[in-house]
Amino acid sequence: MTFAAFHKKSRRYSKLGLAPGTVKYIGERKDQKHIVSLIEFDKDHCNSSVLDTNKVLETFFPNEPKSQWFNIVGLTDESFIKTLGNSLNLNLLTLESVVDTHQRPKIDDFDHYLFGVFKMVYFDDNASLKYEHLAMVLIEGKLITFQEVEEDVFNGVRTRLSQEASRIRQRGADYLFFALLDAVVDHYFIALEQLGLKLDELEDMVYYNPEASQGQKIQKLKKEILKLRQHIYPSKDLVQKLLNSTHPLIKEETKVFLRDLSDQCAEINETLQLYREMSTNLMELHMSTMGNKMNEVMKVLTIMASIFIPLTFIAGIYGMNFDHMPELHWKFGYPMVWILMGSCFIGMLLYFKMKKWM
Amino acid sequence: MTFAAFHKKSRRYSKLGLAPGTVKYIGERKDQKHIVSLIEFDKDHCNSSVLDTNKVLETFFPNEPKSQWFNIVGLTDESFIKTLGNSLNLNLLTLESVVDTHQRPKIDDFDHYLFGVFKMVYFDDNASLKYEHLAMVLIEGKLITFQEVEEDVFNGVRTRLSQEASRIRQRGADYLFFALLDAVVDHYFIALEQLGLKLDELEDMVYYNPEASQGQKIQKLKKEILKLRQHIYPSKDLVQKLLNSTHPLIKEETKVFLRDLSDQCAEINETLQLYREMSTNLMELHMSTMGNKMNEVMKVLTIMASIFIPLTFIAGIYGMNFDHMPELHWKFGYPMVWILMGSCFIGMLLYFKMKKWM
Amino acid sequence: MTFAAFHKKSRRYSKLGLAPGTVKYIGERKDQKHIVSLIEFDKDHCNSSVLDTNKVLETFFPNEPKSQWFNIVGLTDESFIKTLGNSLNLNLLTLESVVDTHQRPKIDDFDHYLFGVFKMVYFDDNASLKYEHLAMVLIEGKLITFQEVEEDVFNGVRTRLSQEASRIRQRGADYLFFALLDAVVDHYFIALEQLGLKLDELEDMVYYNPEASQGQKIQKLKKEILKLRQHIYPSKDLVQKLLNSTHPLIKEETKVFLRDLSDQCAEINETLQLYREMSTNLMELHMSTMGNKMNEVMKVLTIMASIFIPLTFIAGIYGMNFDHMPELHWKFGYPMVWILMGSCFIGMLLYFKMKKWM
Amino acid sequence: MTFAAFHKKSRRYSKLGLAPGTVKYIGERKDQKHIVSLIEFDKDHCNSSVLDTNKVLETFFPNEPKSQWFNIVGLTDESFIKTLGNSLNLNLLTLESVVDTHQRPKIDDFDHYLFGVFKMVYFDDNASLKYEHLAMVLIEGKLITFQEVEEDVFNGVRTRLSQEASRIRQRGADYLFFALLDAVVDHYFIALEQLGLKLDELEDMVYYNPEASQGQKIQKLKKEILKLRQHIYPSKDLVQKLLNSTHPLIKEETKVFLRDLSDQCAEINETLQLYREMSTNLMELHMSTMGNKMNEVMKVLTIMASIFIPLTFIAGIYGMNFDHMPELHWKFGYPMVWILMGSCFIGMLLYFKMKKWM
Amino acid sequence: MTFAAFHKKSRRYSKLGLAPGTVKYIGERKDQKHIVSLIEFDKDHCNSSVLDTNKVLETFFPNEPKSQWFNIVGLTDESFIKTLGNSLNLNLLTLESVVDTHQRPKIDDFDHYLFGVFKMVYFDDNASLKYEHLAMVLIEGKLITFQEVEEDVFNGVRTRLSQEASRIRQRGADYLFFALLDAVVDHYFIALEQLGLKLDELEDMVYYNPEASQGQKIQKLKKEILKLRQHIYPSKDLVQKLLNSTHPLIKEETKVFLRDLSDQCAEINETLQLYREMSTNLMELHMSTMGNKMNEVMKVLTIMASIFIPLTFIAGIYGMNFDHMPELHWKFGYPMVWILMGSCFIGMLLYFKMKKWM
Repeated sequence: MTFAAFHKKSRRYSKLGLAPGTVKYIGERKDQKHIVSLIEFDKDHCNSSVLDTNKVLETFFPNEPKSQWFNIVGLTDESFIKTLGNSLNLNLLTLESVVDTHQRPKIDDFDHYLFGVFKMVYFDDNASLKYEHLAMVLIEGKLITFQEVEEDVFNGVRTRLSQEASRIRQRGADYLFFALLDAVVDHYFIALEQLGLKLDELEDMVYYNPEASQGQKIQKLKKEILKLRQHIYPSKDLVQKLLNSTHPLIKEETKVFLRDLSDQCAEINETLQLYREMSTNLMELHMSTMGNKMNEVMKVLTIMASIFIPLTFIAGIYGMNFDHMPELHWKFGYPMVWILMGSCFIGMLLYFKMKKWM
Repeated sequence: MTFAAFHKKSRRYSKLGLAPGTVKYIGERKDQKHIVSLIEFDKDHCNSSVLDTNKVLETFFPNEPKSQWFNIVGLTDESFIKTLGNSLNLNLLTLESVVDTHQRPKIDDFDHYLFGVFKMVYFDDNASLKYEHLAMVLIEGKLITFQEVEEDVFNGVRTRLSQEASRIRQRGADYLFFALLDAVVDHYFIALEQLGLKLDELEDMVYYNPEASQGQKIQKLKKEILKLRQHIYPSKDLVQKLLNSTHPLIKEETKVFLRDLSDQCAEINETLQLYREMSTNLMELHMSTMGNKMNEVMKVLTIMASIFIPLTFIAGIYGMNFDHMPELHWKFGYPMVWILMGSCFIGMLLYFKMKKWM
Repeated sequence: MTFAAFHKKSRRYSKLGLAPGTVKYIGERKDQKHIVSLIEFDKDHCNSSVLDTNKVLETFFPNEPKSQWFNIVGLTDESFIKTLGNSLNLNLLTLESVVDTHQRPKIDDFDHYLFGVFKMVYFDDNASLKYEHLAMVLIEGKLITFQEVEEDVFNGVRTRLSQEASRIRQRGADYLFFALLDAVVDHYFIALEQLGLKLDELEDMVYYNPEASQGQKIQKLKKEILKLRQHIYPSKDLVQKLLNSTHPLIKEETKVFLRDLSDQCAEINETLQLYREMSTNLMELHMSTMGNKMNEVMKVLTIMASIFIPLTFIAGIYGMNFDHMPELHWKFGYPMVWILMGSCFIGMLLYFKMKKWM
Repeated sequence: MTFAAFHKKSRRYSKLGLAPGTVKYIGERKDQKHIVSLIEFDKDHCNSSVLDTNKVLETFFPNEPKSQWFNIVGLTDESFIKTLGNSLNLNLLTLESVVDTHQRPKIDDFDHYLFGVFKMVYFDDNASLKYEHLAMVLIEGKLITFQEVEEDVFNGVRTRLSQEASRIRQRGADYLFFALLDAVVDHYFIALEQLGLKLDELEDMVYYNPEASQGQKIQKLKKEILKLRQHIYPSKDLVQKLLNSTHPLIKEETKVFLRDLSDQCAEINETLQLYREMSTNLMELHMSTMGNKMNEVMKVLTIMASIFIPLTFIAGIYGMNFDHMPELHWKFGYPMVWILMGSCFIGMLLYFKMKKWM
Repeated sequence: MTFAAFHKKSRRYSKLGLAPGTVKYIGERKDQKHIVSLIEFDKDHCNSSVLDTNKVLETFFPNEPKSQWFNIVGLTDESFIKTLGNSLNLNLLTLESVVDTHQRPKIDDFDHYLFGVFKMVYFDDNASLKYEHLAMVLIEGKLITFQEVEEDVFNGVRTRLSQEASRIRQRGADYLFFALLDAVVDHYFIALEQLGLKLDELEDMVYYNPEASQGQKIQKLKKEILKLRQHIYPSKDLVQKLLNSTHPLIKEETKVFLRDLSDQCAEINETLQLYREMSTNLMELHMSTMGNKMNEVMKVLTIMASIFIPLTFIAGIYGMNFDHMPELHWKFGYPMVWILMGSCFIGMLLYFKMKKWM
C-alpha cells in the first residue's frame, strides 16, 4: 500500500498535530443530518418534541424543574457541539470524545457532570453486527445523549417513559442515565446470543458435515468475537467505576441497579471468554477432522496401490518376450498365474483387514 | 438463520425494553405445576406439610417462633412470586432473578435478607449432566428456596432435619441455608468425578485403541467441562463473599463451616482446571497418534511402491518388441532377469530395514 | 459406564447427604491395622514406645511436662478417632479431614490447636510416585500425626530426635511440627528430581532416537507432572499462611525456618512450571520430528515413483503390438531406448539433487 | 558466531565493567552532528533560535521568566552532555540514560526535576517502522529534549506554540512536556493503524489467495507487532505513574489531560493485544488452508492412481504371452475387456462421488 | 534408571534426613582449592592481599576502620565456613545456603547482616552459557563473597576500586554490595544478547534455508531461554525487595542506584519474555515451512503419477495380445496413439497449471 493510500484510510492522520481537546468529527457518516429531540418529564408529565437545530441553544436549558433528555443525532456539526459544550461548561476533552466515533468506551467524572462513551451493538438488516458510538452527558437534572444514527435501542426506554407509573419518571435524569446504559447492555446480550447460535450451527456442521471451508468460517467467527469483546469488554469496569463512585449525580438508590448491571456485565465477559475457548476448540476439532479425512484418502490410495502394483508386476513378468520361459508353455500356466494373483489379492486384503484400514 | 427464527430461540429478546426488575419467567418449563412445601422445625420438632398454592399467602409467616423452610417448585406463576415478594418486602431485582432460570450464580445482601442463586448439578437417567436453577432467600428465621423441578439434591438435608439431634435443627434457618449450599456443592463433586471417570475412559481408549472418532469425543468432553466450569466456577467467590460478610444473618459459628465449604470450592476449581489441561493434553496425544497412523499408512505405500515399481519396469523392458534385443535370445536370459529382480527386491528390503521402516 | 458402576467407584457418593463434620473414612486401605506409637522427649530424654490401641485413651495425655509425639497409623477406626477428637476438643470438621485421605492440603487454625493436611510423596519399589495422606494436629506441647501407612519419610526426624543436642529436642512440639513439614518438603524435591531425570532421558530419546511411541510417554510424564503439581502446589501458600500467622503455637524463633521452607516451596513451584513448559516443548519437538520422518518417507516414494513411472511408460510404448512401429525395426532401436531411459533417469536425479531432496 | 564477532555486535559489551552512571553513548549513529535549538515562549511571545553548540552553556539558562524548550539533536558528544548535566545538577544515572539509545522507556522523578525516556515511532520513506530514542528533562520552567535525529513528530507542537492563543503558551513548560508526550502517543496510533492495515491485507490474501509464502509474512508481521509492543507497552504504566505522582512539576490542571492520555495508552495496549490474537488466528487459518490444499493434492493423486492402476493391471493381464490363454482368441475378447475396464472406471468414479472427493 | 543410579545423581538425596541448617557442600566441584583474598579500602587507600586459609580467622576482622571485601573461592571446606559463620554470628540457614550451589536466588535480611544469593552467568570458552553460584554477606563495613571459581565478572569492579576517585571507595561496603550486583546484572545482559543473536541467526536460517534439523535447534534454544529465565527471573523481585527494605545496611543514597538496577532487571525479564514468544513463533514458522515442503513433494509425486499412469495404461492397452484388435493393424494406429497420449499429457499439464500446482 502506498503512503498516500494509507493516509486516506487513516482516521488518526487527520488529527496529527492537533492540540488535545480539538473538536473534530472522526467517523464515516459525514453527510449525516442533525436531529435534536427533547423529552421533558416529571412524575406526572412527559412531553416529546423535535427542536430546530438553529434554535436549540436559545430554547436550551430554561430554569426548568422537569427532567430533560436531549437526544442529538448526527455529530458532524462541530461548531454546534462546541457552542453547546461551552454553554454547559464541558471540558474540551469531553467534546473531543463526543465527536470521535472511534472513541473507546469510558466514564469520566468531572465536578459538575458525568461523561460516558459506550458502543451500542445491534443487528442490521443482514443480521450482521453493527457498532454505533454513544456519548452521554449527565448534568444536574439533564441528560444529553449523542449518537450518529437513530436506532431503536432506546425505544423500550421511551415507551417506559411514556407510562404513568414508570420508575424513570419518578427518579429523574440520573436514573434515566442508568436506564439507557441498561438498554445498551441488554442489546449486548442479544448480540452474544446471536454469536452463540452461530457457534452452535458451526459446531453442528463441523461434527456432522465437515468441510475444508469451515476453517475460514470459524476464523471469521473468532474475529467477530474478538471485535465484540474489544467493544463491550470495558463495560464491566466502567459500571464498577460508577458503582464505586461517590459522585453526587449517582444517587444511592440507583446503586442497587448498578450492582445488578455490573453482574450482568460480568456474565457478558464470562460468556465472551467461553465463546473464545469454544471457537478455539472448534478450530482444533476442524483441523483434526480434516486430518482424518486426509488419512482416509491416503488409506484408499495405499490399499489400491498395494494391491494392484504387485499384480501388475506379475502380469508384466509373463509379458516378457524371452525365448526360454518355460512357464509360458505349461498347459496350466495361465490359470496358475490367476491363482497366484488371487492369493496375493486375498493376502493383501487380509493384511489390511488386520491393520483395521478397511 | 433467519431473524425471526433467532427471535424465537432468544431468551433475552422477550425481555428487551422491559424495565430492570420486571418479574418475567425465563426458562423452558412453561407448563410446570406449582408445589409449595413447608418444613417447620425447632430443636424438638420437625413438621413437614404441602401448602395449597392459593392459601399460601394466608398461612404464610405467622408469628411463629419455629424456623421455617418454604420450598417452592415451579416458577411460572409470576403474580404469585410478586405477591410473595411484596409481602416479604423483597427487592424487585431479587424477584426478577428468582424467575430467570438463566441467572448466573450470585449472592446479594440486602438490609433484611440475603439472596443467593446457584446452579444445582445432577445426573439425569441417561447419566448426562443437567443444570437446575436454585434461588434462596434467607430472612430472619425463614428460608425460602425456589426451584423448577423437585430434585433429590436436598433429600439428605431433609433426612438430617428429621433426626432429633441434628445440627440443623439446633442452629436454625441460617445454618439450613449453609446446609443446602453444602448439599449443592457435594453434588458438584459427584459431577466432577463423573467427568473424571469419562476422561479416564477416553484416555484409555486413546492410548490403547486409537480411532479417528475420538477427536469428537474429546471435544465434547472439553465442552462439557467448559459448561460445568461456567456454572460452578463462581461458587468459590460467592462462598468467600459470604465468609467475609458481616451481615447479621450469617452467624459467627456458621463461618467455620463456610471456611470449609470455601476450601471445597477451591478444590473444585482446581480440579476443573486440571481436567481442562488433561483434556487438552489428550487431544494433543490423539492428534499425534492419528499422525503416527498416517505415517504408517504412508510407509506401507512407500515400501510397496518402491519395491514393485522398479521390478515392473524391468519386466516392462523385456516386454518390448524390438527386433534386436540380444538378451531375449540368451539361454539364461529369463533366470538372469529373475536374479536381477530378486537382487533389487532384497536391496530395497535391506534399505527399508536400515531406515527402520519395517 | 453404568450408573451403578460409577457409584461403586465414587468416593464422594458415600458421603452424599451426610452432615458436614461426619467422621467417615474415605480411602482405599480399608483393612489397615492401627498402630499408635508415642515419642516423649525433652532436652535430656527421648523415649519411644508403641501403645496398645485399646489403652491409648487411658494413658493419653497425662499431665506430662515432656513434649509428646503421637503417630497414629491406620485411619479406619472412626470411633477411635472420634473419641480421641472429643477428648482433645477438636472440631468435627478437623476429624472429618483426618479420615478423608483425598483431602486437599490445607492449614486450619483453631483457638487452641493448629491442623494441617499434606500429601507425602515418595517412591514405591517400582520407582513410581505414590501419594500418602498426612494429617497433623498441634496442641500445646503435643503433636499428633495421622497417616495410613508407615513410611520412612520421617525416619530422619526420628534419628535427629534420638540425638542428644538436636534442635528438635530443645524447641519442643511446635518445632517438631515444622521439622516434619520440612521432611515432607524434602521428599518433594526428591520426587521432582526423579521427574527431571525422566524428562532428561525422554528428551535424549526424542533427540537421538525418535519413535512414534514417545508421544504417549511424554503425555504420561505430563500427566504425572500435573498430578504432582496438584498435590504439592498448595504447599507454598500454606507455609506462607503459617509464616504470616500470629497463632501462639507458632513461635517467633521458628519463623526463620518457615521463611526458608517457603523459599523452598517457591522453588518447587517454579521447577514444576519449568517442567511443564519443557514437556510441552518436548511434545512439540516430537511432533515436528515425526512430521519430518513422514516427510522423508514421502520423499522416497516420490523419488522412486517419479523416476520409474516414466521409464515404465517408455518400456510400455515399445511393448505395443502395432503392425507399423518403425522404431522396433531399427537396428539401434533397443540401445537408443536405453539411452533415452538413462537420460530420463539422470535428469530426474539431477532435478531431485537440485531440490535437495536427495 | 565467533566470540570476537559477538563482541563487535554487542551494545552492552562496551559498558561492561563501567560504573553505573558512566555517560557513554550507545547507539548506531556515531557521526551525528549536534544541533541545539531553543524556543522561548510566554503568553505573548514565542521566539525560536538555533544555538551555537560551543556557546550553549554560556547562554544557557539566564534568569529568564519565559518558558524555554531546548531541543538537543545528536547524542554523541558525551562531554557536552556531562557539562550540561552538571550545570543543571542532574543525576549521573539520568545522563547515562540520555545517551543510551537502547534505554527502555521510563519515568524517574527526582527532587528538582522529572526525567522521561520514550520511544518515538514513525514511518521512514519505505513505509517501514522506525524507533527513535527520546529523552526529556523537565526542570522548573525549562524543558530539555534529547533525540538522535530531527523528526517531524513534534512539528504539530511547534505549530501550536507559534499560535497566539495556544494552550501550551499559557500553561508553560510542564504542559509542553505533556504535549510532546501526547504527540509521541499520537504517532503510536498511526503505527498501529499501519500494522492494522497490513494485517487486513494479509488476511484478505490468506482468505482469497492462499499461498505457502504467506506463513513467513504473517510471522514477520507478528514479530513487528511484538517489537512495537515491547517499545510502547510500558507507556501506559508510565503515564499512570505521572498521573498518580504528587511531584510539584506536574500541576493539577494538567492531570485531566494525563488521564485522557492514559486512556489512549490503554486503548493502544488493547489494540496491540487484539492484533496479536488476530495474527495468531491468521497463522492458524493459513496452516489449515495449506493443509486443505495438500488434502486436495492427495485426492487428485489418489483418484488418478486408483482409477488407472487397476486398468493397467487388466491391460497387463492380456499382454501376457502364455500359449494357452483362451480369452485372447475369443472374437469379442477385445471389446469385452473394454467393457470390463469401462465398468471399473465408472465404478471408481461413483465411489469417489459417494465419498464426496470429486 | 535404577533406584541406585538415581541416588547417585540426586543432589537432594544426600541431604535427606538432615536438620535444616546443616552446612553440607552441594555441588560438582568437590576438589576445588580454597583461596581467600581480601581487599581493604577507604577513600584514600586500597590494598589487595591473598590470605592464608589457615590464618584467615586469626587475621580476620581486626577493629579496622577501613571497608573490607573478603572474596572466598571454593566452598568445599565446610568446617571453615562454619567457623567463619560462628565468629560472625551468621544464621545456620545462611551457611547452608552458602555451600548449596543449587540454591535459588534470594535475599534474606537478618538483624545485623544482609544475605544474598545470585547466579552469575557468563560464557565459557565454547561460547556456551555457564551458571555460577554467588553468595554475599554484608555486615557493617564488611562484605564477604563466596563463589566456586574465580571469574572475571568482578574484574571491572576491582579496577574501579583501584581508582582514586571511584564512588565505591567513597561509599564503602554497602555500595560495593550494590556494585557487585550491578556487575552480575550487566553480565545477564551480555547473556541475553548472545541468545538474541542466536535467535536471529536461527531465524535467518528458518526463513532462507529451511531444514528439518532446525526444529531441534529451536527447541534447544527455547530450553536455554527457559533455563536462563529460571536463574535470572527472580532478580527483579529481589532488587525490588532491597529497594523497599528499611534495613539500616541499605543507605538511602544507594537506593537511586537500586531503582535503576530494578529497571534493568525489568528490562531483562521483558526481553526474556520477548525471546520466548519469538522462539515459539519461530517453531511455528519452522513447522509451517516443513509442511509446505512436504506439500511440494506431494505435488511432484501427484503430477508425475497423474501424467504417466494414464499414458502407461494406454500403452498397456496396445500391448495386449488379442487376436482381434483392429487398431493394431491400422496404418496410422501408432501415430494416432502418440497423438492420443500427447493430448492426455497436455491436458494434464493445463489442469495442473490451472490449479497453480506448477
